[in-house]
Amino acid sequence: MTSLGTIAECLKKSSRVVLSGHVMPDGDCLGSVAALGLGLLKLGKEVTLASPDPLPELYHFLPGADRFLIGEQALKGNYDTFVVLDSSVPDRLGPLKELLFRDLVVCLIDHHVGKHDFGHHVYVDPKAAATGEIIQDLLDLLQVPPQVEIASCLYTAIVTDTGSFRYQNTTPLTHRRVARLMEEGVDAARLNVLLFEQKSLLHLRVLQAALQTLDLTPCGRVGWMSVTRETLDSLGAREEHTDGLIDYVRSLRGVEVALLFREIVPGRWKVGFRSRGRVDVQRVASQFNGGGHLRAAGAVVEGEVGAITKGVVEAVLKAMQED
Amino acid sequence: MTSLGTIAECLKKSSRVVLSGHVMPDGDCLGSVAALGLGLLKLGKEVTLASPDPLPELYHFLPGADRFLIGEQALKGNYDTFVVLDSSVPDRLGPLKELLFRDLVVCLIDHHVGKHDFGHHVYVDPKAAATGEIIQDLLDLLQVPPQVEIASCLYTAIVTDTGSFRYQNTTPLTHRRVARLMEEGVDAARLNVLLFEQKSLLHLRVLQAALQTLDLTPCGRVGWMSVTRETLDSLGAREEHTDGLIDYVRSLRGVEVALLFREIVPGRWKVGFRSRGRVDVQRVASQFNGGGHLRAAGAVVEGEVGAITKGVVEAVLKAMQED
Repeated sequence: MTSLGTIAECLKKSSRVVLSGHVMPDGDCLGSVAALGLGLLKLGKEVTLASPDPLPELYHFLPGADRFLIGEQALKGNYDTFVVLDSSVPDRLGPLKELLFRDLVVCLIDHHVGKHDFGHHVYVDPKAAATGEIIQDLLDLLQVPPQVEIASCLYTAIVTDTGSFRYQNTTPLTHRRVARLMEEGVDAARLNVLLFEQKSLLHLRVLQAALQTLDLTPCGRVGWMSVTRETLDSLGAREEHTDGLIDYVRSLRGVEVALLFREIVPGRWKVGFRSRGRVDVQRVASQFNGGGHLRAAGAVVEGEVGAITKGVVEAVLKAMQED
Repeated sequence: MTSLGTIAECLKKSSRVVLSGHVMPDGDCLGSVAALGLGLLKLGKEVTLASPDPLPELYHFLPGADRFLIGEQALKGNYDTFVVLDSSVPDRLGPLKELLFRDLVVCLIDHHVGKHDFGHHVYVDPKAAATGEIIQDLLDLLQVPPQVEIASCLYTAIVTDTGSFRYQNTTPLTHRRVARLMEEGVDAARLNVLLFEQKSLLHLRVLQAALQTLDLTPCGRVGWMSVTRETLDSLGAREEHTDGLIDYVRSLRGVEVALLFREIVPGRWKVGFRSRGRVDVQRVASQFNGGGHLRAAGAVVEGEVGAITKGVVEAVLKAMQED
């Protein structure tokens, strides 16, 4: 691994820089790409902000959001440097992976634990709560003067990846960095409204329908909700309106594993798993040909919802007993 | 107004201190009372933690929670100093107001805008996001050595009163103070689970019932939900299970004023007002003999829910037009 200073030196020497985060972009990768990109613009570089997938509507307010080139659009440019952010493997770059095979200097910056076996200069800090924290330090090294647009991008990166400073990854340094961003002019209250208080009516209609199905095992350690295709269609709701539903189950006192059953097409169900106890839900999901992590996993199962629920809940209870 | 240093000197001279926050206690007043109380214990004082009302179950985890005397229980003691926290008028002390008529030195510390026309030593800082922020400074002045129990109480005070650092009141100093609390050993992730991810099943059942009543004006700028006495009784739910309901309405895109109608006894409704636009809801609430602040207010209204809703919504729309 190289030092962040080496990456700063490399960027100082660059002229035409393209930056990208990962597929299915989130607040951290978009905020980090925009912040570093706007900073390099300040230094007089030619800068292209790129994203493998379109920006979710939620992030259209981000300074620099209108400058992003999406997917293959970004392959047309002539660059000398490729900055990859918040990604541990090349596949996370989607169509932009192709840029790795060109004659470009590749800088990789990330905070995830992972392989990171590509790129000429690689800097990974798993103690950073967000890639945005590393970018804040990098902009200091590049001596980019403070700017409220850049600070707002970094705030967005950090507040989204820490779950509003609630997750385990939040450190004292996270709070000190955010204090500085606010001193640089970030209107944190406004950003929080834009990020967390712009729910659509459909969101709440779907929540209401899902809550009607809320159920727990007699022991209270496993909870679940389901949303049928019919419910979504009758409300005119889309997949994105089910985002975050599983967190309502997970937030219940005593619940160790939360499940969400979403009917993608009639008879075909996406099952979401969340664990906040010691149960490894990735292991349970793999019994249904799914995958994921220790605490968050998913699978697709076919059949009738009653039978599917019974099967998955029993598998979770069995994993708990073996624990 | 006196300085915080004067209050520190006064507390140093005290021997038998009773501390209390306000009726219907929240995280800030309980965390502040517990933190300062535990700090004064460290300094060798005789300390009584008091609360006009019982502690909500949510806060039973707080260090010092088991030491609280509730309501009139706290009137029996023999004290020389009374510390009142997070309260702007004597009525907020409920039955503990009686202590103001005894021969005690009264110190009042608060961050609300208000009258504060009682007490011998009064310190008010409306720039502090929480009374807990002021207590952190006061404990420094008292030279109480850092202690994880105290820091956890202060973290609770600050994270609850800032809505997880989302509200307008959050400042750079808030984040710097929290950084220090984490350095003193606060397990922030654990506290956040205890505070925000321990919902009861009844909470979600009441939410589901309330969502069925969710409605908006045609312009989408005013939204409301209602919970009848019958609903609460049939679910076996209490007042506390309606906490936070109004935030679901407030989080809707386009909504500027959110309302919640809760039936306290048959035909008698508590109306909650939240504004995130420019409408002064305190002014609207006052038309119904209620009160509060610019952005959060309440009133009690009698009658049939349909007529009440119509009247309140029309008053809000009228205030918007006058704006």
